[in-house]
Amino acid sequence: MHNDGLSETILSAKPVFDGRILHVEVLDVTLPDGSPAKREVVRHPGAAAVLPMWPDGTVTMERQYRAPLDRVFWEVPAGKLDHKGEDRLDAAKRELLEETGLVADKWVHLGDYASSVGFTDEVIGLYAACGLHAGATHLDEGEFLRAERRPFAEVLADVLAGRIIDGKTVCAVLQANERLRTGEIVP
Amino acid sequence: MHNDGLSETILSAKPVFDGRILHVEVLDVTLPDGSPAKREVVRHPGAAAVLPMWPDGTVTMERQYRAPLDRVFWEVPAGKLDHKGEDRLDAAKRELLEETGLVADKWVHLGDYASSVGFTDEVIGLYAACGLHAGATHLDEGEFLRAERRPFAEVLADVLAGRIIDGKTVCAVLQANERLRTGEIVP
Repeated sequence: MHNDGLSETILSAKPVFDGRILHVEVLDVTLPDGSPAKREVVRHPGAAAVLPMWPDGTVTMERQYRAPLDRVFWEVPAGKLDHKGEDRLDAAKRELLEETGLVADKWVHLGDYASSVGFTDEVIGLYAACGLHAGATHLDEGEFLRAERRPFAEVLADVLAGRIIDGKTVCAVLQANERLRTGEIVP
Repeated sequence: MHNDGLSETILSAKPVFDGRILHVEVLDVTLPDGSPAKREVVRHPGAAAVLPMWPDGTVTMERQYRAPLDRVFWEVPAGKLDHKGEDRLDAAKRELLEETGLVADKWVHLGDYASSVGFTDEVIGLYAACGLHAGATHLDEGEFLRAERRPFAEVLADVLAGRIIDGKTVCAVLQANERLRTGEIVP
């Protein structure tokens, strides 16, 4: 146990659901004051997300239906890691190719993004991809999405106006915007 | 079923775990091509998060331990909704008071943030709080965190350098930064 007055000690983890993607555990922990508590945790392999940026100021975005909120979202291309510990940049390259048919000459790490620290260990690696050219598209079976090139300025405006709310996409777009401003990214 | 070629039809939802906070379901869905599939979904009440901004350029941040990733994070003050459908701004005001002892005269909506659309319906309302003054602190039982005022410029640098990775915090800080730039927020 850390003596920072904040950390909890995890005593045990009981699996309560083992799905195809999600694994849910209930942890027994000891709080900083020594009292016991339970924590419900969703184990997730993690993911990678890519903002593909073109020299003409457009970016490749996707429309994808998501069952948890029963609606279609504007998102950056993204996908789960094949296994926990897979290199996130490798996963980003694979997902970019699978979902958009693109390969990229230059990759910029936009940071990692812990989607909801209160209940899941999911971390999503965020990247900008520049120097884009055509590869071949192979959508995963059962994956339905529509890729579309849109002006980055329009996507940014949608993020700022709350028309785009997918978390990884909000983070990727705003992180990329800061780096466009500083010249760290030149599409 | 929508005829957009993207949407799925949800046929049924089977509860597989009913916890204190999380409720996990396996959905039977029909894909756009008519074939069947299953979706694992974590139902979550939703949450609200607040970036408290002071006239001297500092913001109130928190250090909090999170069991899913077994480490301490820098975060903006935040908390779960009391029930699905609770007004997110009401929840933001309550959490700001409970966690930092502050009340605010001016609230700016920074957008909503869907934390991980692939597997959960959690949506977090993000707000900036200005015109801050002291109320009274009442931490929830079993909640251990440390609030600290830090220069916003330093927090922004931590976000851009990947030293802050909590998703709601990354989104709130970058959204607020855009609005400081445009003058929409004047702390």
